[in-house]
Amino acid sequence: MLEDKNQERTSLSSLGEFGLIDHLTKDIETNQSTTLKGIGDDAAVLDFKDKRTVVSTDMLVEGVHFDLSYMPLKHLGYKAVVVNISDICAMNAKPTQITVSIAVSNRFPLEALEELYSGIRHAAKVYDVDIVGGDTTSSQKGMILSITAIGEVEEDDVVYRSGATNTDLLVVSGDIGAAYMGLQVLEREKQVFEVNPNNQPDLEAYDYLIERQLKPEARKDVKGLLKELEIKPTAMIDVSDGLSSEIMHLCKQSKVGCDLYEEKLPLDPQLINVCEEFNLDITTVALSGGEDYELLFTIKMDDFEKIKANPNFTIIGHMTEERGGIHLVTRANTKIALKARGWDAISEDEE
Amino acid sequence: MLEDKNQERTSLSSLGEFGLIDHLTKDIETNQSTTLKGIGDDAAVLDFKDKRTVVSTDMLVEGVHFDLSYMPLKHLGYKAVVVNISDICAMNAKPTQITVSIAVSNRFPLEALEELYSGIRHAAKVYDVDIVGGDTTSSQKGMILSITAIGEVEEDDVVYRSGATNTDLLVVSGDIGAAYMGLQVLEREKQVFEVNPNNQPDLEAYDYLIERQLKPEARKDVKGLLKELEIKPTAMIDVSDGLSSEIMHLCKQSKVGCDLYEEKLPLDPQLINVCEEFNLDITTVALSGGEDYELLFTIKMDDFEKIKANPNFTIIGHMTEERGGIHLVTRANTKIALKARGWDAISEDEE
Repeated sequence: MLEDKNQERTSLSSLGEFGLIDHLTKDIETNQSTTLKGIGDDAAVLDFKDKRTVVSTDMLVEGVHFDLSYMPLKHLGYKAVVVNISDICAMNAKPTQITVSIAVSNRFPLEALEELYSGIRHAAKVYDVDIVGGDTTSSQKGMILSITAIGEVEEDDVVYRSGATNTDLLVVSGDIGAAYMGLQVLEREKQVFEVNPNNQPDLEAYDYLIERQLKPEARKDVKGLLKELEIKPTAMIDVSDGLSSEIMHLCKQSKVGCDLYEEKLPLDPQLINVCEEFNLDITTVALSGGEDYELLFTIKMDDFEKIKANPNFTIIGHMTEERGGIHLVTRANTKIALKARGWDAISEDEE
Repeated sequence: MLEDKNQERTSLSSLGEFGLIDHLTKDIETNQSTTLKGIGDDAAVLDFKDKRTVVSTDMLVEGVHFDLSYMPLKHLGYKAVVVNISDICAMNAKPTQITVSIAVSNRFPLEALEELYSGIRHAAKVYDVDIVGGDTTSSQKGMILSITAIGEVEEDDVVYRSGATNTDLLVVSGDIGAAYMGLQVLEREKQVFEVNPNNQPDLEAYDYLIERQLKPEARKDVKGLLKELEIKPTAMIDVSDGLSSEIMHLCKQSKVGCDLYEEKLPLDPQLINVCEEFNLDITTVALSGGEDYELLFTIKMDDFEKIKANPNFTIIGHMTEERGGIHLVTRANTKIALKARGWDAISEDEE
């Protein structure tokens, strides 16, 4: 839809690489006390004093991870930052800085990059992180974003994927499956639009699902919520590829098994309605959908009373001995082996 | 030339994203004492204690920054790491960790990624840095590499671009211009090869230039060399886009002018011969070539005696007042204004 806009466009080549980087970054300020030097030198300089530094990086490729025909550039910029910040939160750390590298083909005018950058900067503001570096260059085709997120954490607060033990409870924040169904709705609308461009879609019945897909949020609040409850997770991961896949990561790295209860899965009412409309099995969607960016973690059984009534969290299962395997306990009370059916960027690709 | 090989090939889609990442990273070890946790969690965990952390990132795009028809994948991997480590060295810091993100189209078999990764790992070994994270995904076209390098530095050792003052001496490590001429030689050979694929090139007369282009090294040694000389640079930058361009960055950020002496430029004898053969002006090549990955820095005039006879460094000019401007003093002793003609990735792009 980019090509349809009839607005003024500035070609990237008229600015040159340095001009473009200067233009996009000229009024970026830094607010974190740990940022001594941001953009403008060979490298950023940070000072974490006695805290641990955590670093995570993600690459997003047009046509593989996003489709600009229904993903506004501002939302894309926002989401690209959120995805990386979510990884920092999954270490029980506080996100503090990001670097942003962008490769774009000349099909994009300067105004498109400004839109993208406005989303990136909005996310940086919302999550209180400094943009301290990056790179902007041309691509042969499409847009590629690579973001590195940095965070800080006290030595005693770090939570790895590997700390879960037998009898620990499995907990997830928020609800799951909605982002995936949001994508299904958007893809259906895209097909409708291609058949009849004058058709005005009414997406009100899908607003939550679409928001979860286009403007996900990282659970930066979970660290504080758990601290208030006086709970330290034993293991943690963010739900980016799908709940099944993340549970299997936790189990593999912690060398435990897991019983997950189908009836406990936290599902939004809108998701339930739309799964029915699309004739999709809601448990499959919740387990394999992905892109929820909720936090999945384990806690000691003794912490049950502290968390059971908290509206932010749902206990969805418990860890078992490794030889017990990883199972879904269905509503009919049968146990079936869980399979990772997370979204797989490589195998979807075709050239 | 990739397509010409008749070796066994494994398609990336047969592995899936997790399988591919596991395969490429399975025996990566960490050696740095600052690396508490490397690959395998949502983020790496590092501990720099009371030292400063420096972070730099670069994106390399096939067809824009490299041409696989004469750049072997192993060399590309090595160079991609070197380019980023050079930025860390330019802060007078010690490189400690890297993250590596790769997007590739399905045209690349697993064996190609293994080659690339072997170069990345070799560089990590040579420069003693840990590979602590990254992402591997598919692209719509070609290969894109995004590397983030992390380093550590004592508070008092950090050198910015902005610290040069009037009368400081301008110094460069090694020699310059060779990497650019190496590229010219390789491009000529590519054209010869396209006309007659049976022609066996004799590149012995160009070996130094080609090595500078295909296997550049970052000057990780300069920090130690200067420490031995008891010199702390006042400002520093690495020569990636061309000497002119880097001098202008130093002058702009330090708010000074500069007189650069043409006769002082450190040039390899092979470069002199080949510039003659190609009928190119050697000063233009030295000033605008780029990709030398030498360090350009300023020192106090009082340090002249300490450095003047050192074979690793050449004094090529001195800083002046800002209103003096930035000039090249030619062999004929005329002053001409210096222009940034560094290599510009954006304006070269065509779609």
